[in-house]
Amino acid sequence: MLLCLDEASIGIIWAPICCKGLEAAELHGQVNVIFGPPPSSPVEATDCHEPHAISVSMPASPSGLHIVQAKKVLFIDKAGPTAIDGQPNQPSDSDSINSRQPQQGKFHSQPISAGNSCGKPTEGKVSDPFESQLRIPRNDSQRDKRFDPFKTWSGKLERQLSNLRGKPQEPDLEAANDCHSAENETVPAVDRYFDALEGPELDTLRATEVSVLPEDKKWPFLLRFPISSFGMCLGVSSQAILWKTLAISPSMSFLHVSLTVNLVLWCISLALMATIFLIYFLKIIFFFEAVRREYHHPIRVNFFFAPWIACLFLVLGLPPSVTVNVHAAIWYVLMAPIFCLELKIYGQWMSGGQRRLSKVANPSNHLSIVGNFVGALLGASMGLKEGPIFFFAVGLAHYTVLFVTLYQRLPTNATLPKELHPVFFLFVAAPSVACMAWAKIHGDFDYGSRIAYFIAMFLYASLAVRINFFRGFRFSLAWWAYTFPMTGAAVATIKYSMEVTNVLTQSLSVGLSAISTFTVTALLVSTIIHAFILHDLFPNDISIAITQKRPKFSKKLAHLRSASSDMKDIEASLPKNNPELEL
Amino acid sequence: MLLCLDEASIGIIWAPICCKGLEAAELHGQVNVIFGPPPSSPVEATDCHEPHAISVSMPASPSGLHIVQAKKVLFIDKAGPTAIDGQPNQPSDSDSINSRQPQQGKFHSQPISAGNSCGKPTEGKVSDPFESQLRIPRNDSQRDKRFDPFKTWSGKLERQLSNLRGKPQEPDLEAANDCHSAENETVPAVDRYFDALEGPELDTLRATEVSVLPEDKKWPFLLRFPISSFGMCLGVSSQAILWKTLAISPSMSFLHVSLTVNLVLWCISLALMATIFLIYFLKIIFFFEAVRREYHHPIRVNFFFAPWIACLFLVLGLPPSVTVNVHAAIWYVLMAPIFCLELKIYGQWMSGGQRRLSKVANPSNHLSIVGNFVGALLGASMGLKEGPIFFFAVGLAHYTVLFVTLYQRLPTNATLPKELHPVFFLFVAAPSVACMAWAKIHGDFDYGSRIAYFIAMFLYASLAVRINFFRGFRFSLAWWAYTFPMTGAAVATIKYSMEVTNVLTQSLSVGLSAISTFTVTALLVSTIIHAFILHDLFPNDISIAITQKRPKFSKKLAHLRSASSDMKDIEASLPKNNPELEL
Amino acid sequence: MLLCLDEASIGIIWAPICCKGLEAAELHGQVNVIFGPPPSSPVEATDCHEPHAISVSMPASPSGLHIVQAKKVLFIDKAGPTAIDGQPNQPSDSDSINSRQPQQGKFHSQPISAGNSCGKPTEGKVSDPFESQLRIPRNDSQRDKRFDPFKTWSGKLERQLSNLRGKPQEPDLEAANDCHSAENETVPAVDRYFDALEGPELDTLRATEVSVLPEDKKWPFLLRFPISSFGMCLGVSSQAILWKTLAISPSMSFLHVSLTVNLVLWCISLALMATIFLIYFLKIIFFFEAVRREYHHPIRVNFFFAPWIACLFLVLGLPPSVTVNVHAAIWYVLMAPIFCLELKIYGQWMSGGQRRLSKVANPSNHLSIVGNFVGALLGASMGLKEGPIFFFAVGLAHYTVLFVTLYQRLPTNATLPKELHPVFFLFVAAPSVACMAWAKIHGDFDYGSRIAYFIAMFLYASLAVRINFFRGFRFSLAWWAYTFPMTGAAVATIKYSMEVTNVLTQSLSVGLSAISTFTVTALLVSTIIHAFILHDLFPNDISIAITQKRPKFSKKLAHLRSASSDMKDIEASLPKNNPELEL
Repeated sequence: MLLCLDEASIGIIWAPICCKGLEAAELHGQVNVIFGPPPSSPVEATDCHEPHAISVSMPASPSGLHIVQAKKVLFIDKAGPTAIDGQPNQPSDSDSINSRQPQQGKFHSQPISAGNSCGKPTEGKVSDPFESQLRIPRNDSQRDKRFDPFKTWSGKLERQLSNLRGKPQEPDLEAANDCHSAENETVPAVDRYFDALEGPELDTLRATEVSVLPEDKKWPFLLRFPISSFGMCLGVSSQAILWKTLAISPSMSFLHVSLTVNLVLWCISLALMATIFLIYFLKIIFFFEAVRREYHHPIRVNFFFAPWIACLFLVLGLPPSVTVNVHAAIWYVLMAPIFCLELKIYGQWMSGGQRRLSKVANPSNHLSIVGNFVGALLGASMGLKEGPIFFFAVGLAHYTVLFVTLYQRLPTNATLPKELHPVFFLFVAAPSVACMAWAKIHGDFDYGSRIAYFIAMFLYASLAVRINFFRGFRFSLAWWAYTFPMTGAAVATIKYSMEVTNVLTQSLSVGLSAISTFTVTALLVSTIIHAFILHDLFPNDISIAITQKRPKFSKKLAHLRSASSDMKDIEASLPKNNPELEL
Repeated sequence: MLLCLDEASIGIIWAPICCKGLEAAELHGQVNVIFGPPPSSPVEATDCHEPHAISVSMPASPSGLHIVQAKKVLFIDKAGPTAIDGQPNQPSDSDSINSRQPQQGKFHSQPISAGNSCGKPTEGKVSDPFESQLRIPRNDSQRDKRFDPFKTWSGKLERQLSNLRGKPQEPDLEAANDCHSAENETVPAVDRYFDALEGPELDTLRATEVSVLPEDKKWPFLLRFPISSFGMCLGVSSQAILWKTLAISPSMSFLHVSLTVNLVLWCISLALMATIFLIYFLKIIFFFEAVRREYHHPIRVNFFFAPWIACLFLVLGLPPSVTVNVHAAIWYVLMAPIFCLELKIYGQWMSGGQRRLSKVANPSNHLSIVGNFVGALLGASMGLKEGPIFFFAVGLAHYTVLFVTLYQRLPTNATLPKELHPVFFLFVAAPSVACMAWAKIHGDFDYGSRIAYFIAMFLYASLAVRINFFRGFRFSLAWWAYTFPMTGAAVATIKYSMEVTNVLTQSLSVGLSAISTFTVTALLVSTIIHAFILHDLFPNDISIAITQKRPKFSKKLAHLRSASSDMKDIEASLPKNNPELEL
Repeated sequence: MLLCLDEASIGIIWAPICCKGLEAAELHGQVNVIFGPPPSSPVEATDCHEPHAISVSMPASPSGLHIVQAKKVLFIDKAGPTAIDGQPNQPSDSDSINSRQPQQGKFHSQPISAGNSCGKPTEGKVSDPFESQLRIPRNDSQRDKRFDPFKTWSGKLERQLSNLRGKPQEPDLEAANDCHSAENETVPAVDRYFDALEGPELDTLRATEVSVLPEDKKWPFLLRFPISSFGMCLGVSSQAILWKTLAISPSMSFLHVSLTVNLVLWCISLALMATIFLIYFLKIIFFFEAVRREYHHPIRVNFFFAPWIACLFLVLGLPPSVTVNVHAAIWYVLMAPIFCLELKIYGQWMSGGQRRLSKVANPSNHLSIVGNFVGALLGASMGLKEGPIFFFAVGLAHYTVLFVTLYQRLPTNATLPKELHPVFFLFVAAPSVACMAWAKIHGDFDYGSRIAYFIAMFLYASLAVRINFFRGFRFSLAWWAYTFPMTGAAVATIKYSMEVTNVLTQSLSVGLSAISTFTVTALLVSTIIHAFILHDLFPNDISIAITQKRPKFSKKLAHLRSASSDMKDIEASLPKNNPELEL
């Protein structure tokens, strides 16, 4: 049985039973790419009713790899009708096209680093516009080479395979490939991300920048599949926790919520998690360079916490009918990657490089904090003692730092969006989870828990009254990650209502749960619309396609905006083009 | 009976019995303005011994408003001998006067926005100096129009009234009025406040700026009555609390303080509060634009917490002879405006506009924090439980943020005075009130309370040893707000001395109480001197009279200082006029 | 018996029995300088087996001072073979030497302020190179006058003594001396320290700066003896505490550590402390100007806490065989200077001058925090109650501020080293001591203690995994101060292992203790090598020898780097010398 990897494939998770979706996807008619899954998927899909659905064996010998390679060609060439790359438009007569086209060609010939001397065409020499047109089809005759730098085995292996097949590549292309592989070693510096991208999630290319991947063409699906997709797992699995809490809390017993809702949501979460884990694992295997660039993206890196937090959520939301006792080892296994990531990320904040906190502070950093509290909550629920306090302490210290930093809105915080944005709801996540974690650690919902809970409530209210600021944003998959704080606040409120049971707290619990479920539903609908109707759930992930150096031709423009935000403030306060100055 | 609204009127509160002061005021001979008070004053002056003193009925129908209008004319024209606006000085012969006078005239003709195109006179055209002189008296023949933009009903209503009276206004003036009313819609942006004003309280106009209101003339009293006047209520009512605590604390029983002191101080506080509430309420009614501008002033806005905190103080200082049980509803009523203001102010800190914390951080922000702790203290004293913890938690989180931010002294904190200033005593307020609040919430003076108390003590000591930095400042009504932290520290020390009763803590209690009472007395004397002898207790409130745009003629000068403080630092570190650079 | 003050003298402390070292030192053959110790040394060397070793009586009458003076001449003239100051090199013929030499001469003639008008030679006039050569020997004929500005009694007293001896000084020299004494009144401003020095400890002169003291000559020993030498006391006395804890902790009983190790280490600490206290006391007496400049050095000032913290450590590490009960007065005596320094330092952070926190924040500030917790720990161990909580509270508040500030890495933090540095281990000190202090105050190792402990552990781990960043640094005596946090973490872990006794915590205790002891041993070996083999343990202390004003000839260069770090960032982001800009 085959697994399709496209927007359609996401249909798996919306289908009531996980494997029915495949049929739906096939009905959708876009089963383009066929992969053998990796030998050891990080998530064992043990609960999937048809586990053999994704258990195709991997070719063991390197010689078998050309099959994969061939499949990849299929995979890459599924350019839609919009992705014809401008070539069909015959350069009619205009000079402007003449001067534009060669430049495009130039960038095709050296995808990764536009400013690099390796294979750099002579500046000023106007190359024949037809040459580039001819060259591209020549490359395309086999396959689109432009994605090669992001492929894990693009350079060496492929040439070996070609040679094995007795068809040596052209020497100039080989040189270019060598050049690429040398460039692959380094990812863009953090400054480049700040310079080249804009938007609250740093995911839009600035006008003066060029992408190393073709912007006018749909990229391979795996390249377009971002780490922030795990946000969906966060959203759905936290809903499973919410409905479990609603079902088992005495203060909510008047609602008569069945545990079945929890079971269904949990199964969906598990299937979703398995799917996304699998796809991202494939991305790691086949497009490691793209993963590396995501990891170096100053905002995207925080989403690397999402898979592990989602796993913690899965264990927290475990339906009582499935199991009640989880072995402590699970906790240690899940906390290990979080601990390692924290050592890395918090260390970067402190150690004064380009990723220092005064530069990268952004509400999405909360994702790197909240894992501590979720881990503490799960650990304390499982009866552990010291471990949860450890993570609680680490979380507390760094939450204080992050809370103060984000509240201050330092002008040096390059990535902090100017205006409010859904990402600000992450502010609510840490204190609401912390309140539950402390209640579990301490044994009762004491002053500490209440202080955390009330801070979360105030922040929630503070954001809710500014709800009109949250309109007009472009939908993004990352929004899923911003729903779980609402769910967390709802769960914390239910816990609080068990301590202070009255009409007000019960209404608040119901209200917040309703808001949370409504938001997730709305987002689900949006996601389905984008996936199946608009077909743009996974747009080209421009964030990973920035050049390593600033493009040459945009330097003059760049001068006007390259200065730091401080400088911009200074400039802003100076009147522009003031004629009186010259007098 | 009539209420006089002038410096003299403030005499009410200093007279031993509140209404005797009126006679004193009348003796003072400046009862210029006569107002009917509004129908529903926000504070019911029920405890004043002669409540009818301020209960004159308001005209109910709009047609009655022309009486008020007529009164306002009286009100406005009470220009003292110093306020002749320069016109009587005949322009003898000098060119310098010639060139100065028209400019003045120009600004009179377009009060709000000097840089606005609406009714802008042609640049460079030297208008006849006599014209402006003629024009002003022509306006003055009816009344001074320059205050119109700040009046609530200046534009529409007045013209309606004029038309009713059958005397249509000149069309050009009408056009100008339209222009004004359009401009009224917007208040100056925060940047303008920073650009146009200076001083630790941002209350002095910079040399390059012009005021939209005449600087050489005393303004109407209500326009000069700032929100910071509520500081007086804070100072006096906190004294009432201090003397109540001194009287009832077992550890202070050796002082044999009578509760009568508390009763007297509390009555004075109540009368003062009623008076100031009434006057400010009139300002809201008649000069809403001025109130709006105070609310948008980045420092003044913090004083909008003062009325509610003072009310909380009043309830806290309630003499046992008056009542001991206060209904919980009072607490909810008083905390509601504080909660709303906090949602607004803290949200602005976070949401990244021009009022973000890294820009507006100033010790006066403590006023927006301390309300949480005062509310928590009162609520816990009244036996409430969850509400006080809520406000304590909100206060704790935001106090941490503010404490760190103020201690860091970010160079971007535009409003933070370069040197120490009495406003720094507000640092002591939050922890000393927090210590009492936590002791009430928790039930005993435990470690948490002690930590807060000792932090307050250290900050107090840290400021006290720098007392020589606190000299040479111009007296300001805002200083009253800076006395209550001292009183708070004294009260906290008395509470602490009840836990740890020994000679040291008792001496410290006596000492701090003495300092607090001495400071309040000294400020009282200063206030009386300024009110009755110097007649400058309420100087023109320049803070609200800045233009919306930077005045044209000062642009060149402004370039030299418009850059942000970072830029200034950079400039400062560069040697000025260095001849070696040109070599 | 005589006390030698040179690197050799430090041998005292390394010799097994403290006074045997003197013989070793004498064998070393460099007993150059002979001092009578001050009448009342701050540390009573009661435990030294031969106390008379350092108890030579001080001359009581001023007339006796010329003996000291004569000794000082000896002291100063011990210029080694590397310190011939260039004069013996005859200016052969080159112009370059001609133009360099006078400049040197110039600076010799006005050591303190190169830009000062006092005795300023005419710019541009090329003075005779031979003149300076002649002038210096003329001065040197008696002694090197260049160190005079740093001597406490250089000006007045010396001349009085000269006159007494019937040998009046040359009038021009006298005038120069007057000039110097006037200049002595002021130390360089903080900005000068930032401008003139570089390196993570601000102890290296920038290329464009000149030293007021000869850089090519070894200075008098006392001038080279920095306050950071007390770091050694911190390192050794904390080891005494560690071994005491290892010996008496039940959870560590399987190691069978003897208390004798503690006793030996404690005696060494005491002797070391007495020695360093004595030497530094002599520096205060004879080179007060140098001490003053150390006190104004923005990083060095934090080391002024070290002596008192080391004293606290000594009391904490007191061997049970010596005494178990310490009088509470000791605690008050030791905490008084810490409290005063804190009032000074924390006040400077807040009060917005050049020493505000956003400018001076540096991990060495932790030294000014950790004293609070050490004091709280000692006080609580001695059975005090309120005092320890006071210092704990002060420490907590300011640690929060410092922790957030350092984690943020504000671009304005001028002294924060760009990369990690051993000084970052000070991060671990405060929470690990705080955890023990809170456990003592509260009576058990509760949640608060664990939170502090786990924060310390995480920070330790965070630094340990970055251990490769800590290579390639030049050895510095200040490193000693960075070892005690490791020891603190080890002691805290032992305390924790008493609460949670299992193999993991016991192994961790052993491991951290081993690392700590290993580090101290390694540093001890390095110190011995630098002291006895390389003879550069105390290099010229450039930090105190910066000029008060920027040297003239370096102004042009200085322009390029004088701007604040913000400006540098801005400049860095702008391409340098971009030819395309001019097009």
